[in-house]
Formats: sequence, C-alpha cells, structure tokens
Amino acid sequence: MFTCDNLGVNEAGHLTFAGQDTVSLAARYGTPLYLMDEARVRHNCRVYRDAMRRHFGKNALPLYASKANSFTQLYRVMRDEGMGVDVVSCGEIRTAAKAGFDLSRAFFHGNAKTDADVACAMDCGVGCFVADNEDELGAIEAEAAKRGLVQKVLLRVTPGIDPHTYEAVNTGMVDSKFGRAIATGQAEELARLALSLPHVELLGFHCHVGSQVFAEDVFERAVDVMLRFIAEMRRRLGFTASLLDLGGGYGVRYTSDDPVLDIADKLGNVARVFHAVCKELSLPEPAVVLEPGRSIVADAGLTLYTAQSVKRIPGYKNYVAVDGGMTDNPRYALYKSRYTVLPADSMNAPRTLRCDLAGCCCESGDILQPDVLLPETVRRGDLIAVCTTGAYNYAMASNYNRVPRPPVVMLRDGESYVAVRRETADDLTALDE
Amino acid sequence: MFTCDNLGVNEAGHLTFAGQDTVSLAARYGTPLYLMDEARVRHNCRVYRDAMRRHFGKNALPLYASKANSFTQLYRVMRDEGMGVDVVSCGEIRTAAKAGFDLSRAFFHGNAKTDADVACAMDCGVGCFVADNEDELGAIEAEAAKRGLVQKVLLRVTPGIDPHTYEAVNTGMVDSKFGRAIATGQAEELARLALSLPHVELLGFHCHVGSQVFAEDVFERAVDVMLRFIAEMRRRLGFTASLLDLGGGYGVRYTSDDPVLDIADKLGNVARVFHAVCKELSLPEPAVVLEPGRSIVADAGLTLYTAQSVKRIPGYKNYVAVDGGMTDNPRYALYKSRYTVLPADSMNAPRTLRCDLAGCCCESGDILQPDVLLPETVRRGDLIAVCTTGAYNYAMASNYNRVPRPPVVMLRDGESYVAVRRETADDLTALDE
Repeated sequence: MFTCDNLGVNEAGHLTFAGQDTVSLAARYGTPLYLMDEARVRHNCRVYRDAMRRHFGKNALPLYASKANSFTQLYRVMRDEGMGVDVVSCGEIRTAAKAGFDLSRAFFHGNAKTDADVACAMDCGVGCFVADNEDELGAIEAEAAKRGLVQKVLLRVTPGIDPHTYEAVNTGMVDSKFGRAIATGQAEELARLALSLPHVELLGFHCHVGSQVFAEDVFERAVDVMLRFIAEMRRRLGFTASLLDLGGGYGVRYTSDDPVLDIADKLGNVARVFHAVCKELSLPEPAVVLEPGRSIVADAGLTLYTAQSVKRIPGYKNYVAVDGGMTDNPRYALYKSRYTVLPADSMNAPRTLRCDLAGCCCESGDILQPDVLLPETVRRGDLIAVCTTGAYNYAMASNYNRVPRPPVVMLRDGESYVAVRRETADDLTALDE
Repeated sequence: MFTCDNLGVNEAGHLTFAGQDTVSLAARYGTPLYLMDEARVRHNCRVYRDAMRRHFGKNALPLYASKANSFTQLYRVMRDEGMGVDVVSCGEIRTAAKAGFDLSRAFFHGNAKTDADVACAMDCGVGCFVADNEDELGAIEAEAAKRGLVQKVLLRVTPGIDPHTYEAVNTGMVDSKFGRAIATGQAEELARLALSLPHVELLGFHCHVGSQVFAEDVFERAVDVMLRFIAEMRRRLGFTASLLDLGGGYGVRYTSDDPVLDIADKLGNVARVFHAVCKELSLPEPAVVLEPGRSIVADAGLTLYTAQSVKRIPGYKNYVAVDGGMTDNPRYALYKSRYTVLPADSMNAPRTLRCDLAGCCCESGDILQPDVLLPETVRRGDLIAVCTTGAYNYAMASNYNRVPRPPVVMLRDGESYVAVRRETADDLTALDE
C-alpha cells in the first residue's frame, strides 16, 4: 500500500490531500486539477536546508531545481524558505524575478545558452552561471566585458559515473550532452579557458549524476571523483575551488515499489565522505551546493481527473479514460514512469478492476498509467487521483490536441488558492494572427 | 539524399524552402522558427480531395486531422480548400470557429469527451460526433435532448487490423483504448444503443488503423473489414450506413529511408476494393471520408535552429546543441522518430561530422535527432534545419524548462507572414497569480 504523510481518507471515504477533501476541491475548481501542498514543499525544503547546514556547514546551500515545476508563487515559497534556485532558461529567470526572488541566489544551467539568454541573465543579476562549454564561456566573457562586470561561473564537468537510472535522466556519463568530461581532459581545458578570461570569475565545479537517484553511494562516488578533480586542478592550475555543486537531489517515491529514503541521513553519509576526502587531500573544504527539484515538489503534488468512460474488452483488457492525459502528464508516454492511482471518491471500495488509466488525447500512446486497480464500480463522473505529480507534470504540460492546461491550486492551512489559473480556449488562440 | 519539391539550394549555398532563403528568414524572424509552406499544404489537400472525388465519387470528403497542427490560419486554408476537419477537443473547435470554418463540416473525435465538450461542440454546430463509447452516446443524447435537436454521429469501431507501425500510433487493434471492437461484438452493441436513442442520428462507422501507414494493403483490408461489418449491421439491425470514415491518411517521408508514395494512385487501389466489395455484398455505397493530418502538413513544415555549441568527445561522440529541442519537437524523445537534418547556411559543404543534434533542455533525453551528418566546420551561430516538421511539432510543443514556443511563419508566393507569433516571457507568466 502506497502512503505519504499528506494523503488520507476521511469519513466519507474520500481521499484527502494536505488534510483537505479532494472531492470538494474538484467540485470547486473542476478537473483536471493540479493540487500542490504548500506545507509539504516547505517541509521538503527544510529537510535539505537543515541537513546540509548540519552536515556541510553554514555555507552549504540547496538550490531548488525549478525545471521540476516553475510558476511565480513557487519562487515566492523558495524565497521564504531561504532556498537558492537552479534556473535553466530566461523563462525561469523572468518568472523568478516576477516573484521577487533574489537572483543573486540563482545558478543558471543549460547546455545551449544563446547570447540573448546570457544578456537576460545578466540583466536580472543572476548570481552564477553554470557554464557548460567553451562556446558559452566565450559568450559570457563577451557580454560581461561589454557591461564592464565580472561574472561568477561554475563549470559543468562530467565525472563519468553511471547512476544506474533511466537513460533519459542519466547525465553524469562521459558521453553526455552536458559539460566536459574529467576523463578526456576536456574538463581541465575548460577550466584553463575560464581562468584565462578577465571578465569571468571561476568559483568551482558542478556535476550531475542523474535524477531519481536511489543507489546507496552515487553521491558519495561523485563527491570522491569531484574532490580529486578539484585537488588535481589545484595542483596543476593553482586554482582552488571554493564551491562544489553536486547537482540533483534524491529519488522520490512514486509507488510502493520505491524505497523510503531518509534524506537527512543520506546526506550525513555523503558529508562523511566529503570531509574525509578533503582531509585526505589536504583540501580547503569548498561550499557544497545541491540541486533537488523532484524531491522538493513531487510528493507535494497530486492530480485529480474525472472518469469519462469505462471500457471492458473481454479477453483483452480494460480502460478507464479521464479528462486529462499526456498533455498534463507526459511522463508515462516519455519514460514509462510509474505512478500510484487512487479512486479519490471511493477510497474504501475494494479495488478489483485491473485497467489502464487512459488519457483523453487522440493518440494510442496517451496512457497515464497501465495496469492499475480501481473499484469494479468505477463509472463516468468518478474522481480519480494520480499521486506524486508535483514534479515534471505542470512543467512538461503541452497543448497537444489543443487541450488547455489545468490550473495549479495550492493548499495551505486548510485553505486553497489558485497559483496558476486554468487555461481557456481564448488563451490557446492568443498568439494566433 | 533526401529531397522534397519545396527544398532547394540557392547560389549562396543556402537552403531554400518554398523558394525562399532560410538564412534570410532566420535573420528576419529569429530562431527557433517554424516555417510552413502554404502552397504545399494546399497542394496536399488537393491531392486527397481530387483523388477521393475521382475514385470514390462526389460525396467523398477528406477531413484535415487538425491535431497534426492547429492554429487559426490553418483552418482558413482548409476552408479555402474545401476540406472538412477532424477535431479532437473544444480547443480545436474554438480555433476553427475563430477562423470562420464552417463546423458543419467538422467531425468531433475523442475517447473521453466531457459533458462540457459535448455542449461546446453543439454550441458551435459541429456536424458530426464520432462517438467512441456508450458513456459518450449517453452524454450526446442527454445534451441533444435538452436542446431539442438530433445530433448526427458516427461510431468508432476497431477492425482488429495491425498496420505494423509503431506502438504509439497503432490504433486499430482490438485492445485499443479507442472505440469498440467488431470482434468482441461490442461494436454491434454500440450500434444498437445508438439506434435506440431518439436524439442521435447514426450515419455510419469510423475506424482508424494507425498513423504513418506505408504498408501496401492496410486501407484495403480496413475497407474490406468495415464493409462486411456494415453489411452485417444492415442484415442484423436493418441499419444501412451512409458514411464510412476510414481514419488517417498515408505515411510521410521523413528521411531517404522512407518510400515515396503516390497517394492518388494508392487511393485508386483502395477504391477498387471498395467498389468490388460493395458490389459483392450488394451494399449501397456509403460516402467515404478519410482523415489525413500528417500527410497534409508534415512536408509543408521546416524548423530552423541556431547552433549554440559544438562538442567533440574524442573516442565517444559529438554533439551540436541548438536553441530549441524537445519543447518544440518532442517526437524523437517520445517515439525515436527520424528526421532529416540539414546545414541550412552551408549546404555545399561536405558533411563529415557525425553527431547528435541536441536540444537546449536540461534533460539528457532532449535529443532532436541522433547520428546526423553536418559539416566539420559547424560552429556556434550556424543555421540548422530539421525537415518535415509540419505535423506534431507545434501541436505537441510544451513550455518545458519554461522555454517559449517558436512562432509559425507561413510562406506564400515569395512572401512570408506570421501565423502564430513568438511566445514571450510575459506570456509564460500570464496565467500566474
């Protein structure tokens, strides 16, 4: 049985989320509907922030990787919680700016930043660029020179670690599209270039070994590889990194098959390796940065749908089709990602109907989740919840089939409020001439 | 070597599209940029329209399956060309209405229509619903009764044909999420229900055997199965279908590996089977409808990108990263779809650099196309074209990574005009509270 602190069942047999009745929320806001549990977001921020300070010292900083979910109100929450942010586009930067987020606490990622991106980030006072390659360093130097400023940068390097996760989210390998590999000597070349540029101030290095990391020692191995690289650069280039950015956070529990992680405890293990290796190498300890995204927002999200048809094909399979789909959650279509699906309005009914939860798009691949269990009585009008949708759902939503995107409703202290309003048919043609 | 009538190379060695210099277009409109060749769209419409009339008679009608690409101006073109349209959502219906498209010529698809969808379609005067299931028939009956009208419907049935195409676009199998299968008897049950409803007028049946169909006899087999089903329903229910909708159109040529099809000739073959089987079964010939989408717009589209970084990883692989990606074209990420990639500003340079064309999103899976050949000299600022992007690119675009969607610029008679303007950072936060 899948559980999460913010899920429950009330006396009516309705699913509750953040203590609120999902049936009432659906009635008020309509479906499909993204819900976000603000307290859970804040809790997840504090887990990282407190554990990082405790284990890595006061200069350690968690950055919310806002590509996981990005809208104005979420940056306000991050500002309140004292988080930094990892941004990957001018769209994210401008959204954070609109929220009044202090962009000196933003790290700007991306493997293909344009000149316009570089200028926009400098306009908004982004604190640190995570430079991916030589072309980008050239663009940063040129723009910074033009403005008469010195831009702080990290360099993205690939430590060559296979985190044994899915291909699409595996970014630390030597043949990655991201960064420059330590193994090929190209990371060192990139560092030499950065150190040669008068309008670039090199702070240190970034790596990212993959998303949805559960394996015991992935971050420990990354720390070990990165610190030895930092020591090597100190010896060979005379450059001592003051900052080490270890990339993404820990994995998230989507179904009862995923393990329960104690993130604070895990970070303690990483810190022990960090301190030991720094000591072994006689290396001044760099400030440590992490970039949790998924693990900040995923379990703070839940999506509500209304069933529109129930289809039994005897001898084949069954389908329950809902009023959303790959437009609001493309992750099964893209990655075969697993989710927990619940009958939100009849949580106490026995779940004996094995079915695929199908989306409403005119495409066979539009399946939200195969092989789930729902009550035998499920029918048009019933409320269906997909859990743990706070990451990479709204962020990846499209208007495929010209389907409007659902609203994002935040839940706080027994109240609810709209953070992103529902898209309308008029919005869909707003850019059309 | 991949060729298409609307591609060429001019004296400057630049790629031309619809006779216009892509380098000039990129300079004028910026990149990433969707281009659409209006003449090619119209030509493709006429191929279907003329061949269908010639082979199936004057009542035959091609519907443009607008989920392939939907924006206001495109429905104006369809109106001019005398096409019907296949719509799959209120968003498409409202966009067509905005274009002044006569919605009595629209067929409304979808496996999960909501009550609101049904009401919206009736508000807009949609000519025919393609009812997918019993739940939907109930909703149509209820809404039509409330309005005191009789709604024309087709029923979606699954003929049980495997078109040997990709899983995600294979929709004619018995275990499909769409329609009701002939083989299980459920198609007949659905027809009995439709015939029993006083505010529903059953016109006939629809099937869809899959997208990107190249196989010689897929439509012939579908015609055969469907006509025998129609004859069976005539015998058993006393209902004579006046309309047969055979679903999607023919496959499209994305690379030189795909065959060149003569659609008019192919349709002649289908028609021969159609006439012969009708005669064999002594069946009055139903009007025939087809729903080409991809084959109307795909080769009328081309996307232009600017290279942002070139990364050589000796012993591993090479990457050229551009200023777009899975946000404007998710089809490689979703289906491993193949595309032809061209160096738009240096078409005469030898192509010897084998590389992956990487997108700008912070995700390893954001590859536009693996294993392409570009000039050894390719560098930041160079213009890269991805061909045949008129279908399922703009339509499936997202704001993942908070990346704005490119504009759609139409090319007509040596001129160009904006059909969908470029999305801005302000647009991205327009729905945020």
